[in-house]
Amino acid sequence: MISVEQALTEILSRLPDRQTLVCPLADSLGCVLAQDIQSDIDSPPYDKSLVDGYAVVASDIQAEVELSVLEEIMAGQVPTQRVRSGTAIQIMTGAPLPEGADAVVMIENTTCQNHTVVIHKASLKPETNVMRKSTSLSQGDTILKAGTRIRPIEMGILAEVGCTDVPVYRQPELAVISTGDELVPATTRPAPGQIRNSNGPLLTALGTTFGAATRSLGIGLDDFDSLSELVAEGLKSDVLVLSGGVSAGVKDLVPGVLAHHNVEQVFHKVRLKPGKPLWFGLVKQRAQTTLVFGLPGNPVSSLVCFLLFVAPVLQQLLGVKSDVLPSCKAQLTEAFQQRGDRPTYFPASLTMRDGTSEVTPLNWKGSADQSTLSQANGLAFFPAGEQLYAEGSEVTVFKFPS
Amino acid sequence: MISVEQALTEILSRLPDRQTLVCPLADSLGCVLAQDIQSDIDSPPYDKSLVDGYAVVASDIQAEVELSVLEEIMAGQVPTQRVRSGTAIQIMTGAPLPEGADAVVMIENTTCQNHTVVIHKASLKPETNVMRKSTSLSQGDTILKAGTRIRPIEMGILAEVGCTDVPVYRQPELAVISTGDELVPATTRPAPGQIRNSNGPLLTALGTTFGAATRSLGIGLDDFDSLSELVAEGLKSDVLVLSGGVSAGVKDLVPGVLAHHNVEQVFHKVRLKPGKPLWFGLVKQRAQTTLVFGLPGNPVSSLVCFLLFVAPVLQQLLGVKSDVLPSCKAQLTEAFQQRGDRPTYFPASLTMRDGTSEVTPLNWKGSADQSTLSQANGLAFFPAGEQLYAEGSEVTVFKFPS
Repeated sequence: MISVEQALTEILSRLPDRQTLVCPLADSLGCVLAQDIQSDIDSPPYDKSLVDGYAVVASDIQAEVELSVLEEIMAGQVPTQRVRSGTAIQIMTGAPLPEGADAVVMIENTTCQNHTVVIHKASLKPETNVMRKSTSLSQGDTILKAGTRIRPIEMGILAEVGCTDVPVYRQPELAVISTGDELVPATTRPAPGQIRNSNGPLLTALGTTFGAATRSLGIGLDDFDSLSELVAEGLKSDVLVLSGGVSAGVKDLVPGVLAHHNVEQVFHKVRLKPGKPLWFGLVKQRAQTTLVFGLPGNPVSSLVCFLLFVAPVLQQLLGVKSDVLPSCKAQLTEAFQQRGDRPTYFPASLTMRDGTSEVTPLNWKGSADQSTLSQANGLAFFPAGEQLYAEGSEVTVFKFPS
Repeated sequence: MISVEQALTEILSRLPDRQTLVCPLADSLGCVLAQDIQSDIDSPPYDKSLVDGYAVVASDIQAEVELSVLEEIMAGQVPTQRVRSGTAIQIMTGAPLPEGADAVVMIENTTCQNHTVVIHKASLKPETNVMRKSTSLSQGDTILKAGTRIRPIEMGILAEVGCTDVPVYRQPELAVISTGDELVPATTRPAPGQIRNSNGPLLTALGTTFGAATRSLGIGLDDFDSLSELVAEGLKSDVLVLSGGVSAGVKDLVPGVLAHHNVEQVFHKVRLKPGKPLWFGLVKQRAQTTLVFGLPGNPVSSLVCFLLFVAPVLQQLLGVKSDVLPSCKAQLTEAFQQRGDRPTYFPASLTMRDGTSEVTPLNWKGSADQSTLSQANGLAFFPAGEQLYAEGSEVTVFKFPS
């Protein structure tokens, strides 16, 4: 059995090249820039005022002084006169600084009377409240680098430099199939022996959270032909995730159906708890590569495998560079007995107390117990090997996205 | 001038009651539950196997032993026979445990020959690999509490208990207007004295990030009638945000236009840097209350005011309980000179080095300099009062949402 690290290396080494597209600015929030973005303007485009007030010659202000007001510059207007010693021009925040002026007095420090203004300042340094042309950036400067994730701040910057058609990496498409004759849709009341399909909504929502355009293909029954039809549909996506049908059970059809569709197995089973039965393979059809994950059927195993192996694929295809699950150190609030030869990723509740991170592995009553899972906001990590971790021990916790 | 804390209290005390609606499960990711959710099933609905293997009487296994296989239970099927000493029933993960059996041996520890199975185990505790009925929850149990935010895990839980019509708080609607004659749309090349409307995309994207259904109403020119028309449209939303037009400049029309629409001013100006000119008011029209924010026109001030005052409103209306901007302590990587009598929220880059949080206030060249802002992932906080913060000083940093 391969390790978690080996499995991730095998997966990421098979990623197809990222595809790029041009996205309207209004739709680009959360995407990642595929190219550097240059400014098409100087910013500011002219020497400008940072406040509402009066543009003056700074050396005029050596005591309270009265100046003659030449004109008033509104937003969107340009000055028509030159400020000389003894004169001022009224100016608004963001307006161009008139020629001759080298500072702006805030309106709060003035009193205006007809065509004169009294400046209530004992002194004023040149450049006060002035921002010079191109201080922020010059035309042609790279303002944002390829690989930058577009947050609200970047939306503002792209608008400022007129980048309304934004080159970004294409959002990956993810298809989700839940397999098993025991599954019924959430809308149906389960008969004896049946359970509702909860993995479908779980995995579909995880796909959305990690930036994929996600399609739920519903339930694949344990029947070769009907499962085969769903898989054919799923293989039109960049990533196909199946849950269930990959452990050692006799009816575990998934690997057979995938082989029928020329999906090449890369590995089956990972030294990991929970999540050992993970299956991974891929198929290339014409220009399309589809990565296929067979996740274990129980929700906690599915969750852990998705976070460790599928989420990094989605984020890489999307162009996101940062760690999928940021980690931190935290102190155990209770002892934890680690057993066996597999590293364990245990759903846990991470909290802060008095500035210290504390982690409580959830007391869940079985691997399919989802209700306890609602308290989890991370995975506590315990390396392989029999060991009792005492209360207060420091362990690594991988944090869920908020 | 009121403080940041007073301003937030004034704002939050005027929030209208949250409205609830029923949302299809598939669309409920990110919403907040408006009611407790009860389970309509026992979970598991029956005693079940946690592995693929053989259901046995645990006391039979005291050395390697051969058992007679009575039948094979597939997923979705129910057992028809009772396991007695000396017999076993083949069973799949999740299948009902046959009567008489009290443990399951993993298939990996068995060898099957015709209708017998050899169990390669020296002993087996009762209950091994068994999850009893209702261990996870019983019908009628509250499985998720009102106020819970719906993450992927909660999507799975809601599906499990058949909650496909989910009671949630209604998503607030936010309208954004950028004001000023100097503004042109991002698609237009600015003429002298003009700049592109970058606040519109910034504020719209912030609204989306904090969970609002956001509409950009474009640019409001400095003309009473045309601005009034836009404001009338904006007042159909739960929250209207205007940027620009609220400082002391002569053409700052916004308060006048708002008064014309019966928007009652609650406060104007907050002891804060940047963001002092913040204007806040509200209007009640029929059943609708609209909170109105006049944000300063420069992008950094707009950003800070949105994060400190508008985002908490959106999150409260959405039902989210947690802090809008989680904070942490971090060490300054360079000295910072705090001046004046206003607390400062300074865009800053927060990084981890050797397990220590470090923060670098951005060296921005003017309050409208957006390009430097792209390096910011938080706001470093400096209380009011002249003080030189030395390199290595510990300061509070409010983190942007990722």
